[in-house]
Amino acid sequence: MHRTKVRVVEDALDANTTLAQANRADFDRSGVMVVNLMSAPGAGKTMLLQKVLTDMEGVRVGVLEGDVQGSLDADRLSHLHIPVVQIQTDNGFGGECHLDANMVRSALHELPLDDIDLLIIENVGNLVCPAEFKVGEDVRIMVASVTEGEDKPVKYPLMFRACELVICNKIDLLPHLDYDLELFKHHLDGVHPGVETMFVSARTGEGTEQLRRYLIDLATRRKAEAAAG
Amino acid sequence: MHRTKVRVVEDALDANTTLAQANRADFDRSGVMVVNLMSAPGAGKTMLLQKVLTDMEGVRVGVLEGDVQGSLDADRLSHLHIPVVQIQTDNGFGGECHLDANMVRSALHELPLDDIDLLIIENVGNLVCPAEFKVGEDVRIMVASVTEGEDKPVKYPLMFRACELVICNKIDLLPHLDYDLELFKHHLDGVHPGVETMFVSARTGEGTEQLRRYLIDLATRRKAEAAAG
Repeated sequence: MHRTKVRVVEDALDANTTLAQANRADFDRSGVMVVNLMSAPGAGKTMLLQKVLTDMEGVRVGVLEGDVQGSLDADRLSHLHIPVVQIQTDNGFGGECHLDANMVRSALHELPLDDIDLLIIENVGNLVCPAEFKVGEDVRIMVASVTEGEDKPVKYPLMFRACELVICNKIDLLPHLDYDLELFKHHLDGVHPGVETMFVSARTGEGTEQLRRYLIDLATRRKAEAAAG
Repeated sequence: MHRTKVRVVEDALDANTTLAQANRADFDRSGVMVVNLMSAPGAGKTMLLQKVLTDMEGVRVGVLEGDVQGSLDADRLSHLHIPVVQIQTDNGFGGECHLDANMVRSALHELPLDDIDLLIIENVGNLVCPAEFKVGEDVRIMVASVTEGEDKPVKYPLMFRACELVICNKIDLLPHLDYDLELFKHHLDGVHPGVETMFVSARTGEGTEQLRRYLIDLATRRKAEAAAG
């Protein structure tokens, strides 16, 4: 008697995870290191990029901009003379409050992946849903602004837990706020113990050198991995 | 021949709209004026309420607090000795980034509606989805903080369009920011011409008297309507 071998597919993935893996495979083929950059609206993601991406020591950077509408941030970054592609979640994606793997995938053909070492995906400003949708990234960075108050890690724990680096921005405003930096650190430690943190001001440039170094090192690591086969 | 009259139901509503109307009917029965208060995370909704709700000249206020997790804001408001009910969207609602009519409905039995003149529903901090879900409110107020930048009306137009009042908060920080108030007004006028605006600082109290007056007038109007039958 001939028995057909039945293969059981376990761990069936949801569509987003499947598409995120497809993106990941494309990024790997082209040797691109990918960062998913997340924050609340107005925390300063774009200004941080404007500050940091001016001198990347030969690392070729591309940016994928996620917004509900408009292309204001993409326009600001276009001055850097790097490839910038805008995704509008309102346009065909129902006005979504986050990027997902499918939206990122729909934009990949607009990016010269083979000519990029580091792709930064600037997500829609939102502290909830972006953390729930992987898009194929290597690293997740979130930006918290001191003007948002110290309690945000407690109120939006998934976001602060789902990232490898937390950047605390707008520290130039600390003298003018009733903001307790130690309390923020305490809350952050409660939801994500030991996560790497940076305290910066995109406006004055304070601390941004550390982020520039971090991004350059990320891309260099990927290049070294590719060279090692 | 007997003909059965077929009644065609037009304008079938989605579940959220149906539930919002059910909430609305309950609010009307109890003569409650309802405000849906929305903003990005950390724009200062709770601190504004703490400032304004201390003296409401006899208007009986209740608050429904929406958060993904925790009850920090509800705890802060409990000092006001008014009915405060917390909805956690993470708890049974899948970690939603907004309140919807069903979540509000599930909390209504916790509120003494007949003993309240004004119910303030503090939504989850988010500039996208809260604007898409009516919960049975009369008025929508959104709070924008000057620390978020002038471009937010252009990036999140639905939110700025879906409200009757835009409160621009944290104006005490203006001397320390590169923020162009006229540019913000220009952007706001582009997406919602003529919308009522207030410029306030919850921290210093500047301008908050105007909001207190606005809320008292809202509740008084509802009482007068109820008295007139």
